[in-house]
Amino acid sequence: MPMKRNIFLSVFLALVAANYCVAQPSAGRRWINTHSPEVHADRTITFRYLAPHAKEVKLNTQFAAEPYAMTKNADGVWSATVGPVDPDMYPYEFLVDGLRVMDPGNPDCFPNEHFKGSMVEVPDTIPSVYSILDVPHGNVEYVMYDAPSIGATGRLVVYTPPGYDAHGDRRYPVFYCISGTTDTEEVYFKVGRANFIMDNLLAAGKAEPMIIVMPYGNPAAYFPPTSEMPRVDLFGKELMEDIIPFVDKNYRTVDNRLGRGIGGFSRGGGQALRNGLTHTDKFAWVCSYASGIGTDDFEKNFKNIYEDPDKTNREMKLIWTGVGNTDFLYRMATQFSATLTKHRVNHIDFISTGGHTWMNAKLYLHETFQRLFRAGNY
Amino acid sequence: MPMKRNIFLSVFLALVAANYCVAQPSAGRRWINTHSPEVHADRTITFRYLAPHAKEVKLNTQFAAEPYAMTKNADGVWSATVGPVDPDMYPYEFLVDGLRVMDPGNPDCFPNEHFKGSMVEVPDTIPSVYSILDVPHGNVEYVMYDAPSIGATGRLVVYTPPGYDAHGDRRYPVFYCISGTTDTEEVYFKVGRANFIMDNLLAAGKAEPMIIVMPYGNPAAYFPPTSEMPRVDLFGKELMEDIIPFVDKNYRTVDNRLGRGIGGFSRGGGQALRNGLTHTDKFAWVCSYASGIGTDDFEKNFKNIYEDPDKTNREMKLIWTGVGNTDFLYRMATQFSATLTKHRVNHIDFISTGGHTWMNAKLYLHETFQRLFRAGNY
Repeated sequence: MPMKRNIFLSVFLALVAANYCVAQPSAGRRWINTHSPEVHADRTITFRYLAPHAKEVKLNTQFAAEPYAMTKNADGVWSATVGPVDPDMYPYEFLVDGLRVMDPGNPDCFPNEHFKGSMVEVPDTIPSVYSILDVPHGNVEYVMYDAPSIGATGRLVVYTPPGYDAHGDRRYPVFYCISGTTDTEEVYFKVGRANFIMDNLLAAGKAEPMIIVMPYGNPAAYFPPTSEMPRVDLFGKELMEDIIPFVDKNYRTVDNRLGRGIGGFSRGGGQALRNGLTHTDKFAWVCSYASGIGTDDFEKNFKNIYEDPDKTNREMKLIWTGVGNTDFLYRMATQFSATLTKHRVNHIDFISTGGHTWMNAKLYLHETFQRLFRAGNY
Repeated sequence: MPMKRNIFLSVFLALVAANYCVAQPSAGRRWINTHSPEVHADRTITFRYLAPHAKEVKLNTQFAAEPYAMTKNADGVWSATVGPVDPDMYPYEFLVDGLRVMDPGNPDCFPNEHFKGSMVEVPDTIPSVYSILDVPHGNVEYVMYDAPSIGATGRLVVYTPPGYDAHGDRRYPVFYCISGTTDTEEVYFKVGRANFIMDNLLAAGKAEPMIIVMPYGNPAAYFPPTSEMPRVDLFGKELMEDIIPFVDKNYRTVDNRLGRGIGGFSRGGGQALRNGLTHTDKFAWVCSYASGIGTDDFEKNFKNIYEDPDKTNREMKLIWTGVGNTDFLYRMATQFSATLTKHRVNHIDFISTGGHTWMNAKLYLHETFQRLFRAGNY
């Protein structure tokens, strides 16, 4: 009876998602629990990984400085229960005899060029700024675009706010969010929850409706490592010649500097400052999340910003820098801020607790989204 | 000079994406090549994986029945060069001492509840039906929706064709594509390329512009495995009570049976047949990709389809079944087709070469997209 076979098959395979069926020579076949991650009500988390033949399995997470030891049970399932953990979304991976491995049963991945992390969310008793709430949700679109300046097809993730009408009269300001080193164009959506942070702020009347464009900050990766493509500053070229024209052509944008902002995390923050502060004709709002520009470099290459600070302060609506107090780029970010101060260039600094993480990046998005394009400044 | 440090950092970390820097006690530090996958012009592919301490690493792919052995070089990089391989997109993974591991340096993942596969594309000398070509691209949206019937927030991926106007007068037919066992709502986009297949057909005038709704076929997974949620038929309930009303409310749909179709792969095919053929008031177009309904089950529960075949043949605009000739569900699919024939229920069969794979599923999408909603049948 094929259909019964199929029903069994479906149920069987569905169960496989959370459990494995293992052969027990003596006891026959039975189910063992590999459900992972299991977030408990007390904010402890149990992680499980089936590796009967591994010598050592550790849990590497961003809520702990050191990996946790995991212990193996008779079924060959390694597990660790940790916490309570502060409410947030955390990347984690298993270290299996030294190899970095994702959690097989967890479909929530950290999109990245290099490492393969899984994601776990520890909910708070009250909604977090990035929580998925019952408010109007904007659209998140995956977009392909032509990048003739570098001879490739590029990828964008684009957020349009609730009520956006591609054929209506209303135009919206645009904020460009640049991905950091090894991150992809998906990271602000899948890890940063930029869309949900904005949905929540808009529902609370705390932000201006805006389009958020999330490009891939490393277009060199569109080409094989063996290619002769010059890698440095490739993104800046593509941003100016391909991405901004594509966005202004295909979305209802405010096509001027007052309606255009740029920000980024880590390398993306450097790209945001570098492109934003050297193209003040295109951007009036510039945000650096855990990055900066070195003093010597600034003195040498950014005269346009500091030679007439009064002009800069009139023209630039926002220069914002944020960094964590234990971030490995803390010194660079705060030195950059000091350099701006020395030159009497207005800017806002935000120092958060913690390191170079997307837990912090979400806070920076939440802070800056409330300042961008405010007071009809576009 | 912090910025120089930062430039170095960026370049360093960017290189990390394709290479590792390893300590060589005698020779100092140097780069080693872990670029993977490397698709060569002759359609051979080199896969690489750094695992100095692994005893055995194999390459498991869907273009070969058996895993390939990989060999380790002096740097601890395991590699295999295989092929030439027929042009297509293939899932693969590394088997590291028996553990299933993704390719760390490859950002293209197979979205799945359970396994963590990487994807490699072997391009053809001529465009494939799923190739990303310079044609107008529809929008691919990630959508959250309320699912009160099961008390959850659901996820959809939704394709709207080029020229779609959310506020215009034109209405579009809707095709629901149901994900198979362990697949997620992302699979038709990221693995099936349903959007690009449709873009290409529309550009060639070979398909009707339509909305493609890609739900998650396993809503039980919205709940912890320990919950009391009844798992069987949960999707059907959600489809009828939550998803279809949400789509008809939020998109410019043709809200009647002639403008609504349903299809699915594997378990999703069973769900498409089960929901489509028992709700002929809602669906006039039903497609099964590598699935079927057992004869006994059909005789018992689908009288509405076979009791008056002339009525069925008048009302149903398409009943389509496709399966691979080596698919483990080949017998079920062809028996289902024979049962329809025995009852004089019109249907179209399509037998492809190969097994239960997304290489085949892409072909089924391409075949059926050309038949859905044709001749203004809505």
